[in-house]
Amino acid sequence: MAAKIVTLLSDFGLRDGYVASMKGVILGIAPDARLVDISHLIESQDIRSAAFVLFTSYGCFPQGTVHLAVVDPGVGTSRKAIAVRTRSFFLVGPDNGIFSLLLGQEQEWEARSLENPDFHRLPPSNTFHGRDIFAPVAASLAAGASFELFGPPCSPVICDWASPLSTSAGIQGEVIHIDHFGNAITNVTREALERQAPLDRWKASAGGGIGLPVLDAYGQATPGKSLVLAGSSGFLEIALNLGNAAAEFGLDTGSKVFFSY
Amino acid sequence: MAAKIVTLLSDFGLRDGYVASMKGVILGIAPDARLVDISHLIESQDIRSAAFVLFTSYGCFPQGTVHLAVVDPGVGTSRKAIAVRTRSFFLVGPDNGIFSLLLGQEQEWEARSLENPDFHRLPPSNTFHGRDIFAPVAASLAAGASFELFGPPCSPVICDWASPLSTSAGIQGEVIHIDHFGNAITNVTREALERQAPLDRWKASAGGGIGLPVLDAYGQATPGKSLVLAGSSGFLEIALNLGNAAAEFGLDTGSKVFFSY
Amino acid sequence: MAAKIVTLLSDFGLRDGYVASMKGVILGIAPDARLVDISHLIESQDIRSAAFVLFTSYGCFPQGTVHLAVVDPGVGTSRKAIAVRTRSFFLVGPDNGIFSLLLGQEQEWEARSLENPDFHRLPPSNTFHGRDIFAPVAASLAAGASFELFGPPCSPVICDWASPLSTSAGIQGEVIHIDHFGNAITNVTREALERQAPLDRWKASAGGGIGLPVLDAYGQATPGKSLVLAGSSGFLEIALNLGNAAAEFGLDTGSKVFFSY
Repeated sequence: MAAKIVTLLSDFGLRDGYVASMKGVILGIAPDARLVDISHLIESQDIRSAAFVLFTSYGCFPQGTVHLAVVDPGVGTSRKAIAVRTRSFFLVGPDNGIFSLLLGQEQEWEARSLENPDFHRLPPSNTFHGRDIFAPVAASLAAGASFELFGPPCSPVICDWASPLSTSAGIQGEVIHIDHFGNAITNVTREALERQAPLDRWKASAGGGIGLPVLDAYGQATPGKSLVLAGSSGFLEIALNLGNAAAEFGLDTGSKVFFSY
Repeated sequence: MAAKIVTLLSDFGLRDGYVASMKGVILGIAPDARLVDISHLIESQDIRSAAFVLFTSYGCFPQGTVHLAVVDPGVGTSRKAIAVRTRSFFLVGPDNGIFSLLLGQEQEWEARSLENPDFHRLPPSNTFHGRDIFAPVAASLAAGASFELFGPPCSPVICDWASPLSTSAGIQGEVIHIDHFGNAITNVTREALERQAPLDRWKASAGGGIGLPVLDAYGQATPGKSLVLAGSSGFLEIALNLGNAAAEFGLDTGSKVFFSY
Repeated sequence: MAAKIVTLLSDFGLRDGYVASMKGVILGIAPDARLVDISHLIESQDIRSAAFVLFTSYGCFPQGTVHLAVVDPGVGTSRKAIAVRTRSFFLVGPDNGIFSLLLGQEQEWEARSLENPDFHRLPPSNTFHGRDIFAPVAASLAAGASFELFGPPCSPVICDWASPLSTSAGIQGEVIHIDHFGNAITNVTREALERQAPLDRWKASAGGGIGLPVLDAYGQATPGKSLVLAGSSGFLEIALNLGNAAAEFGLDTGSKVFFSY
């Protein structure tokens, strides 16, 4: 049987030894685990962006993959540490909404609060639960530990920004991620628009951009013109053909986007 | 037998989930494949730089390695997707010249156009062939699929910039990569100069730099002085002892460099 | 038995093919080695920072791990290349003090000068010992080669900055690393202070910061105020609650820090 995969996502950056520390802990517990970085360049403490980046890639991984996500502004406070089991994968991380987008897609899942110290690196620090709690739990899952042993059942935080607000005037969404090319990805899906009207009847406004057309593909755009695009993630993204939309319109994670038709 | 290695090279950056998506797809098809990143920080759509970076590292990998390279400005257009088999390795990527430098070095190779949908992730998107075509083909090669099955034979694009132009006045080359230290690597090899005259009789000019001496080693340079160096890749590079040559002379990929003696 | 782990640390950056070249060489010699990046974004030629980053993560790796560290301003000069064996791990790299912090922690170790060309990639270049000497030696260790064969015993360089200077007036230390968040980590440990007086009686000064309080945890700090913190590495770090301390006080690797009580 193939070794279990553990993916890693964080805002730790790539200059320091934090990510390697987590990997060392994992390989000490699950020597055969396959480690795959998703990203460690999430903006510091940006839970929405982490949720989005995980959302865009988790579907490519085989059955049984363990996704470890550590963007954790609340480390050392009373926020829970959780693991989630779905039909096809595991999630491990802080209970701060980082899995909101994923859990919105899954039909069945159960969560545990990671309170069993048998699965922690002892004594856990107050500042680095990635190394001391999340990594050992992820490794234990990869090594086949029983999900039930990690702690009592719990109900994960699902954040508001995981779903946009539909009103009679249109759909109020927000930016959840700025990608490498400066595209501003929103929390609004193509399907959400199409349930109300055909795609090409919608316009969007955000930052300084007003009346941006919603298009199906870059090919339909005028070079240099901004538009809203149904991207490969399923979420609509504000893009500038051959340019950086986020910079052009001053958009950042949390910026409001309004769709109307 | 050792598991096959798949290397990955792209301009996807490290902030998003694109690279991880390719890796998830590969591990789903070839669970034992060893994944090694070459770089994902190639300047956006810079095919020459991608070609160079792959060229400098491919020779270090064992027999049978699969090199997956996705810098793909033409994704969604009619450019072919190809795989190439040589005596010692495989290449998978867009047919846009990204393998020009490598193929110039190899004596024997054959290429296939990746038209067989049995090896694609279906339905392939118009925007992410890295995940939907190149990753599954690379993984299938690592898993031992027959090269002949991927599609019909084809003849890969070899770009002009892969070889400099020799004239009676000298050699007209261009910059193909700016490295981490600001060295500007050209497409001209030490051998090309030495075929015409000894190394120390040559001078180069590029950007604002005129009459740069061509030297064998940094040790021969005056600190703070610019020079042309026979680097470890075999290609001549414009360097500034203790400084950033590309910034100093305003050089970028594509900048012309003229060698004379 | 689990495959040996080889960690990699360098200042090569992530744009070029240097790191991949080392990995290709390693996998050619030790096909089952598990490769884990510690960091390749060490500031160019910053040996102290490399020493610190390795120090913060090595303890998380299992018994037998080989740590390959290449920050090597003296490549091509007469500086030795070394391997070190301790009771729990191996070190491979240039003999320039990069292992000073680690060796200060270990009770027993022995070092060899890497003079046996049987373990080198031949002919070794003058500019890339990472690929030609350190990577093949690290791989050979991972593959089980006898430590004694690599070369004659030697005595590694231990740098001054590995230990601060205690005087009657206090402790004179220096910054050895700036982390991703702009915290300036010093070479002074919490224990060094506590040997002389309780933590809360100490103050520090560095750059423009005078009388910075030494605290146990972020929670005790006033938001926006600078402080000295006993970080998870054991070393004291100058931090700015919700800000970048290094930028605020103009601190860099090598900046002096004075502790008094």
